[in-house]
Amino acid sequence: MADYDAVMISMQQDEGQDQGFDPRTGEPVGQPVPHTGSADVDRAARAAAEAAPALADLPLHARAELLRGVAAALESARDELVPLADAETGLGEARLSGELTRTTVQLEMFADLVADGSFLEVIIDHADASARPAPRPDLRRMLVPIGPVAVFGAGNFPFAFSVAGGDTASALAAGCPVVVKAHPGHPGLSVRTGQILAAALPAGAFGMVHGLAAGQELVSHPAIAAVGFTGSPAGGQALMALAAARPEPIPFYAEMGSLNPTVVTPAAVDARGEEIARGFVGSYTMGSGQFCTKPGLLLLPAGHGLSDHLAEQSAAVTLGPLLSARIRDAFTQGVAELLSKPGTRVLHSTSTVDAQGFAVPPALVAVDAAEVLRGGLQECFGPAAVVVEYASAAELDELLEALPGSLTATLHAQPEAEPELALDLLERLGRRAGRVIFDGWPTGVAVSWAQHHGGPWPATNSAHTSVGMTAVRRFQRPVAYQNVPDALLPQALREANPAGLPRRVDGAMHG
Amino acid sequence: MADYDAVMISMQQDEGQDQGFDPRTGEPVGQPVPHTGSADVDRAARAAAEAAPALADLPLHARAELLRGVAAALESARDELVPLADAETGLGEARLSGELTRTTVQLEMFADLVADGSFLEVIIDHADASARPAPRPDLRRMLVPIGPVAVFGAGNFPFAFSVAGGDTASALAAGCPVVVKAHPGHPGLSVRTGQILAAALPAGAFGMVHGLAAGQELVSHPAIAAVGFTGSPAGGQALMALAAARPEPIPFYAEMGSLNPTVVTPAAVDARGEEIARGFVGSYTMGSGQFCTKPGLLLLPAGHGLSDHLAEQSAAVTLGPLLSARIRDAFTQGVAELLSKPGTRVLHSTSTVDAQGFAVPPALVAVDAAEVLRGGLQECFGPAAVVVEYASAAELDELLEALPGSLTATLHAQPEAEPELALDLLERLGRRAGRVIFDGWPTGVAVSWAQHHGGPWPATNSAHTSVGMTAVRRFQRPVAYQNVPDALLPQALREANPAGLPRRVDGAMHG
Repeated sequence: MADYDAVMISMQQDEGQDQGFDPRTGEPVGQPVPHTGSADVDRAARAAAEAAPALADLPLHARAELLRGVAAALESARDELVPLADAETGLGEARLSGELTRTTVQLEMFADLVADGSFLEVIIDHADASARPAPRPDLRRMLVPIGPVAVFGAGNFPFAFSVAGGDTASALAAGCPVVVKAHPGHPGLSVRTGQILAAALPAGAFGMVHGLAAGQELVSHPAIAAVGFTGSPAGGQALMALAAARPEPIPFYAEMGSLNPTVVTPAAVDARGEEIARGFVGSYTMGSGQFCTKPGLLLLPAGHGLSDHLAEQSAAVTLGPLLSARIRDAFTQGVAELLSKPGTRVLHSTSTVDAQGFAVPPALVAVDAAEVLRGGLQECFGPAAVVVEYASAAELDELLEALPGSLTATLHAQPEAEPELALDLLERLGRRAGRVIFDGWPTGVAVSWAQHHGGPWPATNSAHTSVGMTAVRRFQRPVAYQNVPDALLPQALREANPAGLPRRVDGAMHG
Repeated sequence: MADYDAVMISMQQDEGQDQGFDPRTGEPVGQPVPHTGSADVDRAARAAAEAAPALADLPLHARAELLRGVAAALESARDELVPLADAETGLGEARLSGELTRTTVQLEMFADLVADGSFLEVIIDHADASARPAPRPDLRRMLVPIGPVAVFGAGNFPFAFSVAGGDTASALAAGCPVVVKAHPGHPGLSVRTGQILAAALPAGAFGMVHGLAAGQELVSHPAIAAVGFTGSPAGGQALMALAAARPEPIPFYAEMGSLNPTVVTPAAVDARGEEIARGFVGSYTMGSGQFCTKPGLLLLPAGHGLSDHLAEQSAAVTLGPLLSARIRDAFTQGVAELLSKPGTRVLHSTSTVDAQGFAVPPALVAVDAAEVLRGGLQECFGPAAVVVEYASAAELDELLEALPGSLTATLHAQPEAEPELALDLLERLGRRAGRVIFDGWPTGVAVSWAQHHGGPWPATNSAHTSVGMTAVRRFQRPVAYQNVPDALLPQALREANPAGLPRRVDGAMHG
């Protein structure tokens, strides 16, 4: 805590500051937070490096307790944090309170994962004089913390994907110190959340910097061993290039947007078209369309007859404001670009905005299939969605092949009427997305063991997830020990298994 | 087989060809293999993409049988392959016969891994209406094949790290088609091994290209989903940049050399200094020093008194020739660079080379600690090693901090006499290497579940291994299915678990 305060106090204002705004009014809220100077970035990264060995060496139950402690500290501050978040994001106290619960539950689930110990992936191969092609030494492998992790918090989930969100929770679970680059959209909440984390964790195990330059310096800092990023493709790719250009490149785990296609089969339109239209509009406008899992593309069979229903439902939605003026302006521009495409028709959009703050109306447009085949469709962050009609199953296949990778893909089908089509479409969607949803909606990402939030590029740059228990694997690396005497081995690898860890011994799982 | 032959026959000679040479004489051996033209690279990559879905959908036992079939086919051709390899590499029939066994055993072990099924990492979370913070849908996650893999074979292990080596075996085990870029050092063996693989696998599941330009086109080809590379840092980093510059960047798993430090404590020098010196020389000259795990750096306490013994042992070694004129020239240049460093002393080197073909003498030089602290030490591929003296435990710590990451690090210590020092050094070495060896030597990499062949950059670019059973994880990606009816799920995820797979259900491991 002392260290963290010192960092905060000694921050030098360089070229700017983070100022929060109330999205409902567009007016500034709270004090501006100065951007972090180079010396303080260096100090935070070095403090993380110094804290790393002790954090890695903590017994698993103590590491789990740290995570529970963070969750409890956040819970204690609920009445302070939720209004603070609401003032800077306009997302509403009900949603934000639920998101805070999600954040604390996530920390507790990672604590359970740490206590379980299977995430260490302990493998022991005893020496084998008869092994082919040559006698084998004693080999013991486990996953160890990769080192200090830089986390770029997201703006759209000020709790669950920000300072104390999934990247931070999974990095701490892996045993890695974390330095967060705070999202400029909620600077006051970031500072306060950071103070709570720093107080609940050992000195150096948590740090925070503000400002783009500080974030860039963090990614390039020799003490940083990996990066977790949630944000825009442009920002993510610029930082990814920095990570790759280091003398020692480091893994850059990015989640950079997604189109999230929804496919509806002809039989599903016949059976429950209006219900699907209602669900789709609810999902694409949820949280004002500011979810990475927003279904941005609806693929309907030609002659679906749902356009009026989709438009009516969209018109009936009451939207909260967008998070920032930047997002509002990008949304307006993105919708304009959609509308400029040849053959595009507006299904619903109010052209004049009689709105305060960062509010916008939802936009639903119909785009020609040819445009998708040209690869011209991109995510438009905010309450916008595109409807594309397919003339045949063959054209649908072509459309799916032409789509970029997505975090999610959704299928509405009637398998009892069209079992082969449903099977085929599920397989196709699984090739282009990290999560495939059947007869449901992609928004709402459960935190659980089986969750996967990632997918083919550009949904993420790797075969890893940023949500769910396996997210911890991003921040671990394997080490094998050969013929090391038992007493000198890490406790997790000792023959007697004092911590009772699940492990694979001579090829067979135990525990 | 038919497809493969067609590709081979239709190859267009572009700017060059791969010509094998006998390292013992330097004379050409076998017919030159023309470099693959763009059209044939495209054809091989497309064939792999077309083969991918069927290969992915094979039942696990059938996929395992494919791997066993490849192993059996290679075994059947042993009497042909070993002499062919020897003619092009000069590594000797005994070593090559052992390496072929290692290669077939590796394929069989991956077949066992496939049959075991745990590598699919099946996780099932049943729907839970009482889950916090919100009711949870049914979620089922597994790892699926990432898609066609480009494999860049290595020159120093013409069987085990080349056409049918670890990258190919693990990619096939993951269910991915493979296109190999053949190493130019053993073109005849590559072609023949490739024919055997193509004949043993479904059409399109295996392809091969020759030539640097063809390799570059492969990495950039949209059908390729991941790359496995073993080779030089310069070649690896150039290809890595291509992989990152694609419209859809792909994972690039590289193993690009390693210094492999060996630390000897004062007590170990006292107890068995000459034995350690003998072992070190045997290890750094094994295979003429052409192993990625060659111990290139020996850290000895000042006043160790082993220089004469190390020199005598080095002088007594009988070396086979290096693999190629290029490696010989790079070795000669690397030794010259070592000798040009201020304070460097020659412990053993024969200045005049009375050698045929690509033969060189071993080189052992003493370098000042200051040079290591400056970061001036790099791997010198071939039979060269560097001895550095440390004046104190504190200086040893500084030296270890200054070293680049390595595939391996070795400790010779006397823990009964110096338990804390041994523990501390093992921990330090574990931070800078993927495998830590105690009282042994890093050369000789057992293929087993617990093996790890990777490490902090530049030993590899990721937290993955290229040797051992977990190497398969590089070529898989997770997919989660949400609320998909049982009959529409991949078989591995169905409730009744028809294949009897190990899986985690609602947080607990089963099987």
